[in-house]
Amino acid sequence: MISVNIDKRSLLKELEAYSSSDMYPFHMPGHKRNKEFLPHELPYDIDITEIYGFDNLHDPHGILKRSQEKARRLFGSQYSYMLVNGTTCGILSAVSAAVSYGSEIIIAANCHKSVFNACEINDLDIHFIYPKQDAHSGICMDIKPESVAEALRQYPDSKAVVITSPTYEGVISDIRAIADIVHSCGIPLITDNAHGAHQRFCSVSSEGEPIEGGSDIVVSSLHKTLPSLTQTAVANLQGDFIDHRVFEHYLSVFQTSSPSYALMSSMDICFDFLSDSKAAFGRYCERLGRFGEKMKNLRHLRVLCHGNDSIERHGFYAFDKGKIVIAASHTNISGVRLMEILREEYHIELEMSYPSYAVAMTSVCDSDEGFDRLAAALLDIDKLIEYSDVPDMVIGIPQPRKADGNTPEDMICNGYIYAYPPGVPIVTPGDIIDRETKKYIERLEKAGVTVIRS
Amino acid sequence: MISVNIDKRSLLKELEAYSSSDMYPFHMPGHKRNKEFLPHELPYDIDITEIYGFDNLHDPHGILKRSQEKARRLFGSQYSYMLVNGTTCGILSAVSAAVSYGSEIIIAANCHKSVFNACEINDLDIHFIYPKQDAHSGICMDIKPESVAEALRQYPDSKAVVITSPTYEGVISDIRAIADIVHSCGIPLITDNAHGAHQRFCSVSSEGEPIEGGSDIVVSSLHKTLPSLTQTAVANLQGDFIDHRVFEHYLSVFQTSSPSYALMSSMDICFDFLSDSKAAFGRYCERLGRFGEKMKNLRHLRVLCHGNDSIERHGFYAFDKGKIVIAASHTNISGVRLMEILREEYHIELEMSYPSYAVAMTSVCDSDEGFDRLAAALLDIDKLIEYSDVPDMVIGIPQPRKADGNTPEDMICNGYIYAYPPGVPIVTPGDIIDRETKKYIERLEKAGVTVIRS
Repeated sequence: MISVNIDKRSLLKELEAYSSSDMYPFHMPGHKRNKEFLPHELPYDIDITEIYGFDNLHDPHGILKRSQEKARRLFGSQYSYMLVNGTTCGILSAVSAAVSYGSEIIIAANCHKSVFNACEINDLDIHFIYPKQDAHSGICMDIKPESVAEALRQYPDSKAVVITSPTYEGVISDIRAIADIVHSCGIPLITDNAHGAHQRFCSVSSEGEPIEGGSDIVVSSLHKTLPSLTQTAVANLQGDFIDHRVFEHYLSVFQTSSPSYALMSSMDICFDFLSDSKAAFGRYCERLGRFGEKMKNLRHLRVLCHGNDSIERHGFYAFDKGKIVIAASHTNISGVRLMEILREEYHIELEMSYPSYAVAMTSVCDSDEGFDRLAAALLDIDKLIEYSDVPDMVIGIPQPRKADGNTPEDMICNGYIYAYPPGVPIVTPGDIIDRETKKYIERLEKAGVTVIRS
Repeated sequence: MISVNIDKRSLLKELEAYSSSDMYPFHMPGHKRNKEFLPHELPYDIDITEIYGFDNLHDPHGILKRSQEKARRLFGSQYSYMLVNGTTCGILSAVSAAVSYGSEIIIAANCHKSVFNACEINDLDIHFIYPKQDAHSGICMDIKPESVAEALRQYPDSKAVVITSPTYEGVISDIRAIADIVHSCGIPLITDNAHGAHQRFCSVSSEGEPIEGGSDIVVSSLHKTLPSLTQTAVANLQGDFIDHRVFEHYLSVFQTSSPSYALMSSMDICFDFLSDSKAAFGRYCERLGRFGEKMKNLRHLRVLCHGNDSIERHGFYAFDKGKIVIAASHTNISGVRLMEILREEYHIELEMSYPSYAVAMTSVCDSDEGFDRLAAALLDIDKLIEYSDVPDMVIGIPQPRKADGNTPEDMICNGYIYAYPPGVPIVTPGDIIDRETKKYIERLEKAGVTVIRS
């Protein structure tokens, strides 16, 4: 029996302090702590385990099965699964169910780390599709159907294709065209839809919705863009390429055998909200529209958002107008600095920033007040900054070069290096870390971006 | 944009109804919804993501690192990790870090499904150690050091040993002796300590505590026996056999990249509780002692619990006296029926039941009232039942026989069959399902045990 004196500065106190501050959250989770959408609290009182009458997530027949049935009808899929280990476990299960160990796979180079992890544990031979980058904001463009077709021609033994849509920055790919191409080769399309659970319910985000587009497995975070607790997600399956029983087996491998009823209950509440959410999403779209109108008055900063026609001119297939990307690339401040100013001077917390841009995440739970504060702050800051014709560093994914044993002065990476957020690897195992890459990572870190080596 | 009419019978309402009923929980989670141990609620208000100042679980430098440091000091390990995907993800990471793909491993046959899953995804060649079964209660005995030594002699290429201690039923193995034997072969010992997080803090459970015993990786659920939310766990590492960076890599593979701050906060609160928990555990042990005294008056039922000397005569290495195993094997009712009677007549919910016994889980958060009610109910029921000299079916693990292509009338299993709880496989892929096994499973199901095929 022991007794230890430890530092009792508690995580809870820090969280409560943040929660009770006047900081406005333009970041995940999507519930925004907005009481209007959260009639219930979820304390220890309802935290139980799989006792009599409360079903089993890994073999649902009762109340959890009914909840997943709600999801299936809402998302229009053949099978829906509640996930308590985030989109991460859905991606691990999707890749494991779609391909066999040691086979080949095609993935978009701007996929999340979890896709790389899924490839690693299945020892897959990865073939990359590289999206172009937008010259102005520096964000990755959509994945073009032609690029998918080309990759499939070049690597015909590939057993699945994985892409992310929408991306962290809101860029949507043409899922229908891509799914048709992938299916014509007799293999499944997996869509990491972590940022798109709201697409089906939100008119200004719905283009390229992946279930409707025919993607075989679609994994969507519920907490990012909808009112549900962090770490909750839903996986949707359709079509004949994936055996749902194999997928279910992997879910039971990659998820705890003691799933939290607090998390599952928050998903169930979210499904009930979605079933009658038309008015709420209507108001959200109006808010985005009014915000976009105001953003037309910016001089130096540029905002990719609803109502901003220039998005169409960027050549994206589509853009989730619920994401607000603020490009600072032709100004004398960086995206990282912009995020700091918003935090320190205006008590607005954004989702993430990079040297050339910053991202504000909005959701159906945002308030008029929040949008008004963000618009006023951006217009304010825009007046104080200056135009710069030397664009700040544009973020992107360096084309990885695999080690060929011919580069004595360079290091070969034996892990991953990635900025978090968004969690997209810059360097993967076996890549050469040359001078250019080193300089790139140094500049990210110097700019204040968190770079993780794992 | 869609609008769907769905069934709104909500999971939350069912949970609230259970929570506000007079049902006493002798089951997980260990916090028992006891307000004395839960000064705080954890609602949406404190559910945030990895924003500025709130650290990153996959690369902790701030408040989460401090919380893990608290755990390290409390558990006396070299490295401690908070887990938000249960003991499951700790077991997957432990096995993946300890052995390479396709190698050999020795595991106790009564390991949890997650150990089998870890072996499956690493394509390991499994060698089993079979524990004996207690003739009276039917529960698996401890793993004997001699059995481990014998397995290592027989399979010298094995790269790790995995055992469960305490088991679901509270049986503790001699970790120190086992660790010495395993280490003498130059490989690590992994202990699934899902049911033993409290061992270090509780005098009547502390024998065979696996960190003190020298196990290299110890994974412990926090929610099972301590006050922490369901799905929380801690992994502890020590020694030189495991590279902590490799283990951390796998944790980042098998856990969501958006961990819940509500879950992490509940772990932090649990660590603060543990740092000053001597008096609370003292009262708990007294409660167990008083309960054990009363149980000496049972005529037909037999209880393995604190104060019951017959435990020692059972020949276990040690027994976690916080677990109350109620053997009904020589009575005219089954363990399953006993659990039903307790639920229906006495409003006491147990953790699990099998044909020959039932398990009540207790924790430091149980109340005097709870113990009094259970003792009175068992003494009451004991008066009404009769002795039977035909023992009810004794649960155990049939010795699996691998298919040899020579058994036309039998089926070869291509998945797992297990009762849940406790989640220990009865049949694994490649095993023959012969008449005896089929009959065994039929009897389990007929007795009311949930049998899952996956």
